[in-house]
Amino acid sequence: MKVIRSISELKHELQQYRVSSQHNAKIGLVPTMGFLHNGHASLMTRAREFADVVVVSIFVNPIQFGPGEDYETYPRNEERDLALAEKQGVDIVFIPTVAEMYPQPTKTKIRVSERTDRLCGASRPGHFDGVTTVVSKLINIVQPQFAFFGQKDAQQVAVLQQMVMDLNINVEIVPCPIVREEDGLALSSRNVYLNTEERKQALVLSRSLRDAEVAFNDSKSVTASELREKILSMIQSSPLAKIDYIEVLTFPELIPVADNAIVTEVESQIIIALAVKFGTTRLIDNMLFMPKGAFSIV
Amino acid sequence: MKVIRSISELKHELQQYRVSSQHNAKIGLVPTMGFLHNGHASLMTRAREFADVVVVSIFVNPIQFGPGEDYETYPRNEERDLALAEKQGVDIVFIPTVAEMYPQPTKTKIRVSERTDRLCGASRPGHFDGVTTVVSKLINIVQPQFAFFGQKDAQQVAVLQQMVMDLNINVEIVPCPIVREEDGLALSSRNVYLNTEERKQALVLSRSLRDAEVAFNDSKSVTASELREKILSMIQSSPLAKIDYIEVLTFPELIPVADNAIVTEVESQIIIALAVKFGTTRLIDNMLFMPKGAFSIV
Repeated sequence: MKVIRSISELKHELQQYRVSSQHNAKIGLVPTMGFLHNGHASLMTRAREFADVVVVSIFVNPIQFGPGEDYETYPRNEERDLALAEKQGVDIVFIPTVAEMYPQPTKTKIRVSERTDRLCGASRPGHFDGVTTVVSKLINIVQPQFAFFGQKDAQQVAVLQQMVMDLNINVEIVPCPIVREEDGLALSSRNVYLNTEERKQALVLSRSLRDAEVAFNDSKSVTASELREKILSMIQSSPLAKIDYIEVLTFPELIPVADNAIVTEVESQIIIALAVKFGTTRLIDNMLFMPKGAFSIV
Repeated sequence: MKVIRSISELKHELQQYRVSSQHNAKIGLVPTMGFLHNGHASLMTRAREFADVVVVSIFVNPIQFGPGEDYETYPRNEERDLALAEKQGVDIVFIPTVAEMYPQPTKTKIRVSERTDRLCGASRPGHFDGVTTVVSKLINIVQPQFAFFGQKDAQQVAVLQQMVMDLNINVEIVPCPIVREEDGLALSSRNVYLNTEERKQALVLSRSLRDAEVAFNDSKSVTASELREKILSMIQSSPLAKIDYIEVLTFPELIPVADNAIVTEVESQIIIALAVKFGTTRLIDNMLFMPKGAFSIV
């Protein structure tokens, strides 16, 4: 496994792969912010299935953090990250500095509208402009055929798919299923922020989504607002939970499902997406639902 | 010369070139809005010098026109355009429809800040977002090593160079000198809008720039505001001229030069840029100046 820190060296290295395999080397990119966990590992496994060369980037991207967010304190552990990537059989880990990625503060931003209007796009203004801009940079540098993203950041997947489609970018965005702890907590680098009690209470997120799934499967007539109310009252039973949003939307368009719509009859894939704070830690989780008549793109 | 109207066919065709020449075929892209003139021809000549495969795109891009601008009436003449491209030895002319380029209205826009604040960026809000977005699409489709643009649209060159740098796009933006009629009028597809009297009076633009050049070369102490005043009073002597802007800026940063700065001593390349309406036709023109201490990037 090669650890590369400069853009020019990475491009040179990848060009060797392309030339040596006569156009056939497929490159898979796994963009991460490091502090890797088994969720990231699953992306690398998936990349290995799709691609001949697996590139993992580790870059805590300053421009996707808002003022007062956790850019400075975002957890970092390069040594452990490299060990995990090595174990996954990654070919190249790209770890640029901020100065390498932004030799000048960027004056160019990519902005996706509509799909960024709700959920984290509403709670974290400018966040997705930072994500689309840096992912676009990484795609231009690596020129992969495939890029892999966790479905936990479902809105990120939807926004990136929109960007790729609109700008004719030559890459397939491959969403990968959420990976959870045995007790249901969705894996996240930010989980380390949680103290014991917060971590325990945070289980309410996955539990409420599973309950919603049961209601969806068992009832032919549950409405979007009933599902949302069910989740709301369950999460409110956790005294430490401060709800940012609970939304029932189509996926990947992220258009709200009408309150009185019977969710099993909606003609589109549905996502229930949550963002809830426990102490100072903001967690997100979601679940996809496939009403009859809809077909999955994930 | 091949005339191609679909993105997938164009990609397929270009892939043939890439494979057949074992990675070495350099592709040059000349993006245009058609109604081609000798200015465009000079871009094709330049592309021929740089590239093995010359692709000219002809696409009147709706999203770079503002409400009330001339999108609907922008001059079009495909037959003549194809004859000109053929004569220039172009390999491929790409003429997509609006539906081919925008199967859905784009929700993704690329926005370059600062360099778009002044000149046409100020007069035509949203214009450059439309330009950067469509050029980015064309670059992703064609994947050229070089893309050629006329220096008449100097701000466009500056904005695209910023975008390419910020987003790590794998292309070199090659600016090409302004081509003029014998009497000095800068070539533009919009010149056909001018009636005889307007066309005659429009010569004041190039004349005023040449006068500024003489002042720049002859005087060691001329200031930015003196240069601008000189041009202003000359253009105002044309009764049909309605001035949009006359600006003295650094290039390509497009930062205003201080009024009292002695232009020959500025440590940066300088541009004098004009936009003036004659009747309903808005014309632009500009000239680059190289003070001592500055070095050219064009």
